[in-house]
Amino acid sequence: MSEKEAEALLLELKEKAELMVDLAYSSVIYDNKDLAREVYELENFIDVLNEELQKLAIKDVKGGELEVNEALAIIQLGACSEAIADAARDIADVELRDVELHPVIKESVLESEEVFVRVKVGENSVLKGKTLGDIKLASQTGMWVIAIKRGNKWIYDPRKNTRIEEGDILFAKGPREGMEHFMAIAEGKEKEI
Amino acid sequence: MSEKEAEALLLELKEKAELMVDLAYSSVIYDNKDLAREVYELENFIDVLNEELQKLAIKDVKGGELEVNEALAIIQLGACSEAIADAARDIADVELRDVELHPVIKESVLESEEVFVRVKVGENSVLKGKTLGDIKLASQTGMWVIAIKRGNKWIYDPRKNTRIEEGDILFAKGPREGMEHFMAIAEGKEKEI
Repeated sequence: MSEKEAEALLLELKEKAELMVDLAYSSVIYDNKDLAREVYELENFIDVLNEELQKLAIKDVKGGELEVNEALAIIQLGACSEAIADAARDIADVELRDVELHPVIKESVLESEEVFVRVKVGENSVLKGKTLGDIKLASQTGMWVIAIKRGNKWIYDPRKNTRIEEGDILFAKGPREGMEHFMAIAEGKEKEI
Repeated sequence: MSEKEAEALLLELKEKAELMVDLAYSSVIYDNKDLAREVYELENFIDVLNEELQKLAIKDVKGGELEVNEALAIIQLGACSEAIADAARDIADVELRDVELHPVIKESVLESEEVFVRVKVGENSVLKGKTLGDIKLASQTGMWVIAIKRGNKWIYDPRKNTRIEEGDILFAKGPREGMEHFMAIAEGKEKEI
């Protein structure tokens, strides 16, 4: 075991927990049970990661690589990510319980400064055939793609090397002010990113 | 009571809980106890909001404005935000407990695709005297300003009409690829947003 392993795990826990919150809200807003079920899958994965993290942190104390209070801090940060993940699962649970939320609630979330959008990549879109890294979407428009639906397949937490195809449905979040520009780019109405 | 009130509360709970997570991680990364203490303050505020939300939801059922299962969904979403807020408080607690985290842990969080940055607004910065709304920082660079330190004063969760001044210390989060450009703009080395 090296320190590096524990840190990599801690980082993965943090990122996955935050992804879960985004997917969970998105599932409620777009009444999308696939997204909600994915949150459940991720929650199981997080339990495994967190258990692994705790073992590694304790082993590291034994091996003299970490002080006791450092290990406890790592364990606490991991536990916090797990708590966030649990909350995300409970948000997804609202979607899975088949309670049709008042449209006005969904709207209120969409009225937030940070919005969730869903958009289909058009045949004339400049995004077509490009990777997320190529187009620097996040830094150019402020919008983060959190999931992609391609036919029946889902890509959760897409990375820099994920290539966008025509017909992909992009789920993204970002500032309200960046939303329209992003949607126009995806739909192919706007060519300049 | 109108539906609208419950939704406004739910939205505020969601936004404040997410802000707390960002501030909490930022407090750990930058070893900043002021930020950590602010997370504690916000957590108390969230408890009050959530209690209010529960009362309103139940009143709304009585008044016939909400179905029982709708009210329960609202209550559950509020409870999830409170759980996220509690997790954020526990992250801030790591900072307040005075455990000096391994530098390598802080680095691992900074190596994430989403990074936290702290930067001082220089005298030649184009941001000087502009509001966050004017400059559309979030959609132009992908970076969200989550807090501003101005002298001894803190501005948490700055809004569109918040004006940036020379010497402000901006705490922001966003995509790694947007970080350097944002810092150069804030420092005044780069004029084009």
